[in-house]
Amino acid sequence: MSSSLSCVIQAGHDRPMVGILGGMGPLATAHFYRVLIERTAATTDQEHLPVAIWADPSVPDRTRALLGLGPSPVPALLEGLRWLRSAGAACVAMPCNTAHAFRIELTRLSGVEIMDMVAGALLDARKRDPAVRRVGVLATSGTRHARLYEAAAAALDLEVLHVSAESQRHLVEPAIAAVKGGERADAARWIASAAQELRDSGAEVAVAGCTEIPLVASEAAEILPVIDPMVSLADAVIERLWVPAAAPAM
Amino acid sequence: MSSSLSCVIQAGHDRPMVGILGGMGPLATAHFYRVLIERTAATTDQEHLPVAIWADPSVPDRTRALLGLGPSPVPALLEGLRWLRSAGAACVAMPCNTAHAFRIELTRLSGVEIMDMVAGALLDARKRDPAVRRVGVLATSGTRHARLYEAAAAALDLEVLHVSAESQRHLVEPAIAAVKGGERADAARWIASAAQELRDSGAEVAVAGCTEIPLVASEAAEILPVIDPMVSLADAVIERLWVPAAAPAM
Repeated sequence: MSSSLSCVIQAGHDRPMVGILGGMGPLATAHFYRVLIERTAATTDQEHLPVAIWADPSVPDRTRALLGLGPSPVPALLEGLRWLRSAGAACVAMPCNTAHAFRIELTRLSGVEIMDMVAGALLDARKRDPAVRRVGVLATSGTRHARLYEAAAAALDLEVLHVSAESQRHLVEPAIAAVKGGERADAARWIASAAQELRDSGAEVAVAGCTEIPLVASEAAEILPVIDPMVSLADAVIERLWVPAAAPAM
Repeated sequence: MSSSLSCVIQAGHDRPMVGILGGMGPLATAHFYRVLIERTAATTDQEHLPVAIWADPSVPDRTRALLGLGPSPVPALLEGLRWLRSAGAACVAMPCNTAHAFRIELTRLSGVEIMDMVAGALLDARKRDPAVRRVGVLATSGTRHARLYEAAAAALDLEVLHVSAESQRHLVEPAIAAVKGGERADAARWIASAAQELRDSGAEVAVAGCTEIPLVASEAAEILPVIDPMVSLADAVIERLWVPAAAPAM
């Protein structure tokens, strides 16, 4: 098996295929796929990017693994990557912030490029306002523990702010669990309270740094501009792989 | 390669995987995946069904093939089915009504069971109202030409009604094309007018018999009860494959 780190068209496929390594959670994956479709400037089915999705939600919990409380998700994710590569995926989008803690390891072990959603979100925050310095991040405890956003922010000279440990426990984590459980009623209010805390501590923008959060971030967006890393990732995929049809599609 | 016509757990997988043969169109596929998630009574990621999706929107147009105006979609769909089977798909949902004209052939050639969304929608109409006799169907010209709903209705002693050829051309087909093109503004009104025509000709219920139509059927639902075959299909998949977690998921 040859190894490739660039998004290239695989043998036997005349168009690059987008691989989506999903299921973390399933609703976020469905949302990401929809965002990818809606942000593609296609006017017929045939102009859209071909997509293969692997969504096995039994992948062990990423935060528990990062906190040393559960098994690693890497073996299950590698199975998905192998399968996406066999489908001809030129590169892979992984709509789960916390899983990005394993991104480099997964790319090294599989030879498949996984696009960097975390860096993409921070670049979008910078693009939205070149003067931005302090970025609030709403994320899982796993993402915080792995310091994923801090690592990417350093290269961009940005400072990352989080909510307090208490708000993490009583607002952010319950909101994420509520979306995963299909109960969104209170989640929007909790995320709005967390956004208020970030603004009070000096954040100029909030990154919805867990794929469940953008699904309940409309109230928060009235408090701070909210960057959705799934939108950043979809735009990066389209920019990389989409080619407008030269002639009317068949 | 062994051939199997039942939804069974494949070797190497401890849970049945749902295969989705999609891309026809992409938005309908994303919507179907979301419906499947939302109708599953799971409260954590890990309890959801594992899903593999193949969505290559370059599959040749199904209606054009059925009208003898374009190439067959069968070879492209077979490639998707082979890949879904290699991923361990126990059976396959194909959220495209028109493609159901090729369902038996695809199952025969691939050995993979494709669930029958058309029959499922009519069974749902009957379940909703056991006294129903006349079912209006909003569908592509390909679905009409292949008499897909008529064939399934005969076994249930139901009569299928369609809109006039003129309304097909000026209301239904433009609405489907509008959704595929990402322009939904007028489509809901056109589908509502078509539903009114079905009611005037005696239909007691309308089947949104093209996967783009449920996305713009809220106005129509005020005129006639609307059955969404994607919901029927999702429920059939869940009933067949989903097993509630015995213990709290890891």
